[in-house]
Amino acid sequence: MSDWRRTHYSSVITPDLDQKQVTVFGWVEDIRDLGGLTFLSLRDMKGTVQITIPKKRVSNEVLDKVGKLGRQFSIGVRGKVQAKKEAPRGVEIFPEEIRILGSASYPLPMDPTGRVPADIDVRLNARILDLRREECRSIFNIKNTVIGEVDNFLRQRGFIEVHTPKIIATATEGGASLFPVEYFENKAYLAQSPELYKEALTSVFEKVYEIGLYFRAEESRTTRHLSEFISVDVEEAFADISDVMKLQEELAVRVIDQVRLLCEKELKTLAVELRTPILPMRRYTYDQILKELDEVGQKIVWGEDIPTIAYRELGNLHKGEFYFITDWPTKVRPFYIKPKPDRPELCDAFDFMDEWIEVTSGGTRVDSKDVYVARLKEQGLDPTKFKFYLDNFDCGLPPHAGFGMGLDRFLMGLLNRENIKEVVLFPRDRFRLVP
Amino acid sequence: MSDWRRTHYSSVITPDLDQKQVTVFGWVEDIRDLGGLTFLSLRDMKGTVQITIPKKRVSNEVLDKVGKLGRQFSIGVRGKVQAKKEAPRGVEIFPEEIRILGSASYPLPMDPTGRVPADIDVRLNARILDLRREECRSIFNIKNTVIGEVDNFLRQRGFIEVHTPKIIATATEGGASLFPVEYFENKAYLAQSPELYKEALTSVFEKVYEIGLYFRAEESRTTRHLSEFISVDVEEAFADISDVMKLQEELAVRVIDQVRLLCEKELKTLAVELRTPILPMRRYTYDQILKELDEVGQKIVWGEDIPTIAYRELGNLHKGEFYFITDWPTKVRPFYIKPKPDRPELCDAFDFMDEWIEVTSGGTRVDSKDVYVARLKEQGLDPTKFKFYLDNFDCGLPPHAGFGMGLDRFLMGLLNRENIKEVVLFPRDRFRLVP
Repeated sequence: MSDWRRTHYSSVITPDLDQKQVTVFGWVEDIRDLGGLTFLSLRDMKGTVQITIPKKRVSNEVLDKVGKLGRQFSIGVRGKVQAKKEAPRGVEIFPEEIRILGSASYPLPMDPTGRVPADIDVRLNARILDLRREECRSIFNIKNTVIGEVDNFLRQRGFIEVHTPKIIATATEGGASLFPVEYFENKAYLAQSPELYKEALTSVFEKVYEIGLYFRAEESRTTRHLSEFISVDVEEAFADISDVMKLQEELAVRVIDQVRLLCEKELKTLAVELRTPILPMRRYTYDQILKELDEVGQKIVWGEDIPTIAYRELGNLHKGEFYFITDWPTKVRPFYIKPKPDRPELCDAFDFMDEWIEVTSGGTRVDSKDVYVARLKEQGLDPTKFKFYLDNFDCGLPPHAGFGMGLDRFLMGLLNRENIKEVVLFPRDRFRLVP
Repeated sequence: MSDWRRTHYSSVITPDLDQKQVTVFGWVEDIRDLGGLTFLSLRDMKGTVQITIPKKRVSNEVLDKVGKLGRQFSIGVRGKVQAKKEAPRGVEIFPEEIRILGSASYPLPMDPTGRVPADIDVRLNARILDLRREECRSIFNIKNTVIGEVDNFLRQRGFIEVHTPKIIATATEGGASLFPVEYFENKAYLAQSPELYKEALTSVFEKVYEIGLYFRAEESRTTRHLSEFISVDVEEAFADISDVMKLQEELAVRVIDQVRLLCEKELKTLAVELRTPILPMRRYTYDQILKELDEVGQKIVWGEDIPTIAYRELGNLHKGEFYFITDWPTKVRPFYIKPKPDRPELCDAFDFMDEWIEVTSGGTRVDSKDVYVARLKEQGLDPTKFKFYLDNFDCGLPPHAGFGMGLDRFLMGLLNRENIKEVVLFPRDRFRLVP
């Protein structure tokens, strides 16, 4: 590349540049040979621009290169801008030199124009071509914005970004669904969450967050579970469930507002109209939810978790709604959630819901060593394996609360995608490890 | 916490608030009983404030609480602000109510005031107490700033943040130092880098970055290797080594400038004076470096990698300097680095150095399928296992370049720490998996 530098992205080539020389790079989106005239649509990360090749008026070298081109080739074009009403965006480029930078072989494993619909497995097998579809690029541009805005929001609120270990000696979310790792001479596991570490860190930094990848060996094949997922983990000292629920809803609203502002084009491509949630979002207790479900014929025994089929029903009852479910039975929640002092069969846990999708789980954490040990035992876990965390109770551990927000799930709900794989670049499940 | 809310952080309690009621939360940093008067230093995430307890003028309840307090307890204090010249920062709080939120047991596993020096293993075993030392908090506040500024810089330059899989089927950096994972019925590995994924993604998004954790089973016990480390990975389409070296040096300067601006207090605590690198930073070829080393009696056979002892020597020769080493022998560099067309025994790789520390490796990537296959074979790797990446050569893969920057190493150099564990919250090596 050393003697060629990009001078412009496609999107900034406008009629104002008439007669200027430019160098552009990108991919051949389309190529139409009309006899004396060839139109080439060049796509780069910012958009597309038309390259117009009048056969009689370009050099033989250019003509020769054009003859070799095909869709999805990556190329460089140096040429002159021409303002022209009939061209897309009123502008085209007359090429003086074309370089083929990366060729393609046909047939391509899938059609990246999106004209031929392909099922999700075909698409994931040829993921790079799939991602070139405008729909996919829109999803991941929005995801980039969402992550950036989550980050901005939490930093502005005084949270410190931390990185906790992903290779751990002890399950943080109970023993199920762990991936074992051969760690030198020892057996270790992949972290299911940063739970114990982020909680311990409130004891130093008070307000911490981590946006990271976590791992769960989910056996079931569903549209909302993956083996690897992005979690936004937040934990705050001297705070309780009401503080972090407020933080969660304000975070969601801020991100939605920013996506609306910054991703207008992408939302249009995806035909998504974002909702405007009103604060505070509705809080329903577990008991209220059970009653609602009972009224539509979904009976759940008190104290049981809510099954997928009932969540689907909740999605119908709460169409378009973000809401919280609180006051869960203690026994269906993790050991680190604090039981209510006056009614210990209930606990200070919440789920943040988008229609039928559980986006976030959080709550107030256990603030007594004795209760913690008892809760571990109740859930069949060995307290000696949690020594690292238990020691914190002897070093001025502050009361704290927090949550883990499934970023991919949030995006899935926001953009109305039916399968979480749509919003993950290279998803992992039991049956998919490549690419 | 529900009936108590923090009204102020320590740092905003100033003489201006004289006679105002405040509620503060934090840790007992120090407690001095002078008979009729007890002074308590309360630390929170923003600093410290003095709580003054004149025994005769406070309630019995407060007195009773104070009697139970010890160092490192987490507490809440509600009381009245008093402007007073003799107090630190001219201000103190008279407590009306004190709540013990988290107690401590003595002796503590280490002294968090830093008065008694402890070795790194003692410190890491009691990491939460260790992190409460002002030195540690300064390091991680700076790390938080560094990560935020890396993020800002790359986003402002138009890079898109991506998340690539950490559980992978194929080694990305050659077969050595991989951690195996039991992935359902299959064997998988932890990613050593996002190399192949980020390179492939340039074929869609052109400019991508990822700040993530990667895993290498480093056998050796050194002061600059860990099993888990943060890498800032950057990859750019239609770019070559010179573009990404420029990006790297501009990134470094920007981050240093911002740390100087935003972390004045922390730098003072650490007694670190940041350098002001001048752009462009010096570029040395591998041959020039060998000559330099030869002159100080360090003989390296041409074509060999540079051993640690020689890097230490380079640290002496390049005191205080950030610099690049370029034009490496192809055979000591990974298969994805592009050999120079005119001299294929050399390649377009660079290392970005801070004195003796290799912070970053990068370069121009191979842009021909045939060369790629040949390079894989040369390094004893099986091309069929790289099908995912090789397929990209048939789909318009653009020429591209990039780098992976060891964030922990960068910080270690910036803050003059002799051991990389100093700058990682919960470091992992062969012998350390807890906490």
